[in-house]
Amino acid sequence: MGGKVNSVLGKRILFGAAGVLFLILMFWIGGWFFNLSLIAAALIGTRELYAAFINKGLRPQPWSGYAAVVLFYLQHLYFGGRHDFIFIMAAVVCFLSLPVWFSSVRPIDTAVTMLGFFYPSVILVGALLLLDIPFIHRNVLLILTLIGTFMTDTFAFFVGSKFGRRKLCPAISPKKTVEGSIGGLLGSIFTVLLVGIVLNRVYNSNVNIMHFAAIGLLGGVFSQLGDLSASVIKRYCGIKDYGSIMPGHGGILDRIDSLLFVIPAVYIYALLFLAH
Amino acid sequence: MGGKVNSVLGKRILFGAAGVLFLILMFWIGGWFFNLSLIAAALIGTRELYAAFINKGLRPQPWSGYAAVVLFYLQHLYFGGRHDFIFIMAAVVCFLSLPVWFSSVRPIDTAVTMLGFFYPSVILVGALLLLDIPFIHRNVLLILTLIGTFMTDTFAFFVGSKFGRRKLCPAISPKKTVEGSIGGLLGSIFTVLLVGIVLNRVYNSNVNIMHFAAIGLLGGVFSQLGDLSASVIKRYCGIKDYGSIMPGHGGILDRIDSLLFVIPAVYIYALLFLAH
Repeated sequence: MGGKVNSVLGKRILFGAAGVLFLILMFWIGGWFFNLSLIAAALIGTRELYAAFINKGLRPQPWSGYAAVVLFYLQHLYFGGRHDFIFIMAAVVCFLSLPVWFSSVRPIDTAVTMLGFFYPSVILVGALLLLDIPFIHRNVLLILTLIGTFMTDTFAFFVGSKFGRRKLCPAISPKKTVEGSIGGLLGSIFTVLLVGIVLNRVYNSNVNIMHFAAIGLLGGVFSQLGDLSASVIKRYCGIKDYGSIMPGHGGILDRIDSLLFVIPAVYIYALLFLAH
Repeated sequence: MGGKVNSVLGKRILFGAAGVLFLILMFWIGGWFFNLSLIAAALIGTRELYAAFINKGLRPQPWSGYAAVVLFYLQHLYFGGRHDFIFIMAAVVCFLSLPVWFSSVRPIDTAVTMLGFFYPSVILVGALLLLDIPFIHRNVLLILTLIGTFMTDTFAFFVGSKFGRRKLCPAISPKKTVEGSIGGLLGSIFTVLLVGIVLNRVYNSNVNIMHFAAIGLLGGVFSQLGDLSASVIKRYCGIKDYGSIMPGHGGILDRIDSLLFVIPAVYIYALLFLAH
């Protein structure tokens, strides 16, 4: 038993490290490589969400969803985000007309097709929006968001494993504990604060460290909410993981579910308090 | 039988005229009255859509939807549309977390709640976007859109009643005919062209009349697609009309279903060919 747990944890750490390396590569190469990787993640995430609902007997229209995702990212990159909203209006019109063209599509399938477009793909474009906000240095805001998100998961897991006693919400996610949740929250605040202070030194910048604490707080809160929201869908659709693309972690969606909630939260915070 | 048909048609014309009068009042008074009327129409439309899906046994969360609609319009008016997209990201996050807070909400209900937010309410904000595009005179683009939409319905009805023989799509809307559809299309092009030429004279403007023909064409195509898309939902949910707020016409959604598809189409056309 202990051996099995350790091997699962080992696999999780190994592929987690590979994921972190890939992320570093994304930032390092940047540009087209970053954009392509992001679009790929969005597409795989949307595909995983559709697969989940198909498992539940619904009939989302994957190819309509993929087409909308690819066109959405291409127009976002081409127009610099200027026409994101009008694209969404057009996409909603196209999705709604699906049952007119294809008689096997029911309005409920339209709703699921739309859901898979907005979550995860439309939200994930926020990663590109975060890059465009000047904060110490390009990439910093997105990197702090990633750190807050992943540190919440990590601290929640280890604190929960060691001290967890009170169940957080057994109906949705039976293994989560209140202690782990608090540990994740504090771990996120602590880590982002620490990294922020180091970055202030490195770049000789003068950002009020309360902003780092706030980003850590948002990471700690919204990553757990994002995780639970994704868990409800899995439970509803009768699947354990969204996929198996990352052994030990499940699918892309299992890995980015938290991130999808933290990105908009940090972006709104940045618009309110960091943008000039 | 003939008497009944005439009385139904009479009621339809009477309340149609009342609707047109109300629209004229909206443009005449403008400002807060226009905005409030639009928000009211959006809310009632969203309510009617939720009622339809509730009739089918689904459990959308109306109050979450209404809150999202009102906040969406308020932020749109306050920020002049600058933050529409980020609001949508935030709204998607909030909708997705509904099942975490309320255990009776299933992910499929989330999808329907989101659908009722985007259609009709988010699309309808396009009416405000059309007002902001300078074209001959403020209001003109939206008024031409309304004329194209309603003339399609009217011509399709009368041409179809008189000459209709071949069924257009009996599975979705048994009364529609190919002849009526073509009549609606041509009627829309003809009327918008005519009104456009008159407006060119009145305002001494010099707009290429091909633009009027194009707006009429978009009205003729997309209003019929919008009508059919709304019909599929009604048929699926087992209702005849979305409501009874407009005797002879049904609910607000029965009346604006066509418009909801024409507005984005004309807006995109305007961005591509009319905006400078």
